[in-house]
Amino acid sequence: MKFSFTSLGCASALPTVNRFPSAHVLNVHERLFLIDCGEGCQMQLRKYGFSFLKIQNIFISHIHGDHIFGIFGLLSTMSLMGRSADLFIHAPKAFSGILANFIKHFGDMFKYQVIHKVLDSDQLTIIYEGKSMEILSFPLNHRIDCYGFLFREKRPMRNVYKERVDELALTLHEIARLKAGEDIFREDGEFLLNAELTYSPYKPRSFAYCSDTAPYEKITDFIQGVDVLYHEATFAKDLKSIAQTTMHSTAEDAANVALKVGARQLIMGHFSSRYRNVNVLLNEARELFEESYIAEEGQEFEIPLMAPDINTH
Amino acid sequence: MKFSFTSLGCASALPTVNRFPSAHVLNVHERLFLIDCGEGCQMQLRKYGFSFLKIQNIFISHIHGDHIFGIFGLLSTMSLMGRSADLFIHAPKAFSGILANFIKHFGDMFKYQVIHKVLDSDQLTIIYEGKSMEILSFPLNHRIDCYGFLFREKRPMRNVYKERVDELALTLHEIARLKAGEDIFREDGEFLLNAELTYSPYKPRSFAYCSDTAPYEKITDFIQGVDVLYHEATFAKDLKSIAQTTMHSTAEDAANVALKVGARQLIMGHFSSRYRNVNVLLNEARELFEESYIAEEGQEFEIPLMAPDINTH
Repeated sequence: MKFSFTSLGCASALPTVNRFPSAHVLNVHERLFLIDCGEGCQMQLRKYGFSFLKIQNIFISHIHGDHIFGIFGLLSTMSLMGRSADLFIHAPKAFSGILANFIKHFGDMFKYQVIHKVLDSDQLTIIYEGKSMEILSFPLNHRIDCYGFLFREKRPMRNVYKERVDELALTLHEIARLKAGEDIFREDGEFLLNAELTYSPYKPRSFAYCSDTAPYEKITDFIQGVDVLYHEATFAKDLKSIAQTTMHSTAEDAANVALKVGARQLIMGHFSSRYRNVNVLLNEARELFEESYIAEEGQEFEIPLMAPDINTH
Repeated sequence: MKFSFTSLGCASALPTVNRFPSAHVLNVHERLFLIDCGEGCQMQLRKYGFSFLKIQNIFISHIHGDHIFGIFGLLSTMSLMGRSADLFIHAPKAFSGILANFIKHFGDMFKYQVIHKVLDSDQLTIIYEGKSMEILSFPLNHRIDCYGFLFREKRPMRNVYKERVDELALTLHEIARLKAGEDIFREDGEFLLNAELTYSPYKPRSFAYCSDTAPYEKITDFIQGVDVLYHEATFAKDLKSIAQTTMHSTAEDAANVALKVGARQLIMGHFSSRYRNVNVLLNEARELFEESYIAEEGQEFEIPLMAPDINTH
């Protein structure tokens, strides 16, 4: 039941010798969700051993080159590798024309469909629903139409306390209803309260992605209680004025969001090329929020299963 | 007086963990000529220390993704770095629509002009003329419109033998005319034959680029006598039939071209991803043409200055 985040690139607009542009993988139970797709994404996927076949959904936060220029090579390679399965790209409206032109010039041999799912809601909105997970988009505050993404596991089936099965002579049908979270009113008048007979096996995990954005109050509502937060930290706080002009965040801003939403961990990326060493950003964030980390290329951040909180027990 | 070739990527359609797609730099007297621009080109340029400012001309052999998908990131980065100088992209007709769409979606902040110089000649044709060098295009034999490039130094000014200057009491004006290659008929009736008073300081150097192409007889005429030849070698000869179907060359084909044109050195690239180790290709070429090399990423191949042949002395 893997739930892990790996960055393939933590540069901002200008890549450096050591940093590729934005692209990231969320591995949820061995399904790979690609988040942004900067230039070189396909080489980085290969370098870090991610199978292209496991990608069915790509999420593009906004249409700036450093988040999108890897899509052309990736889609072409998927075609050359014989892909036939539909590919869904969740991206703002402006992606439509870009995709149409790409397909016109380079897509004549494609044997799979590329389906653009348009992001356009200004609310927290479900954009993907799977068996065990759902994904929501929410608006960020950047120079152009830009979205963040919240990935969260669905509430798992509840477990029935073993000793109560025998004690109450639960039928298979009753057990199934209890696992699904129902209370049961037996024909003999007995009432079986779900909360007394079952427990959640684990707390559903969640991950939020916020890039690129100026500080934006609403984010804390959208992703309140998220376990792990990826947040851009293009600048250190001494360059706050440039961050404001370009509508980006500082490491301090990122740490503030992590604090306010009650995250367990903050992962920062999208660093300005002026920082050859990003420790200044890491230290700045850790002053406010100790569990801050750098999105080092290829480093896998596992989001572990946790026992549920008492009140959801 | 540098004249050197560096490959930034020797993969073919599918990049591998160790091989980026096609992109190459020819350094001629510290002007950089970029030849093809596969995905990741800008990162490779940076990695190997090439200044973007020294690039004024880009040559795109054909409009397949593995030769072109790096152009978007490179042009965007040039803009972000404040470029104001015109940039010339020599590319087949099909590039026009791609460039127009790119500029429409991503070029609103550009402060420099991107000028598409259309390649469309089926002959050896001069496409660039500088003070000390000229560049010619010629057609290759691929599935779509595809061009090779011949870079050659112009004939240098001739040197006058020092002992003849005094002996004949040559005036400055006469020396200038002799250096320019003229014979001189003096007023007193004396005839000064240029070939007897001057010599060429060095042999003009040349480099040819052939990717992608099936074997094509005309190439040997187009680039006869070239010093250094880059030629694609996508397959080994046991896959000759796939090479034919896809209109590519084998390492043996590449070596044959080097032999026929009398090159001093063959550099091979554009390797199929099936070759994890390309020694099979190198050995195959060396059986026919000993001075064969692999276009290892970042390895600079210097084309040294040579004394002129006796007959051009």
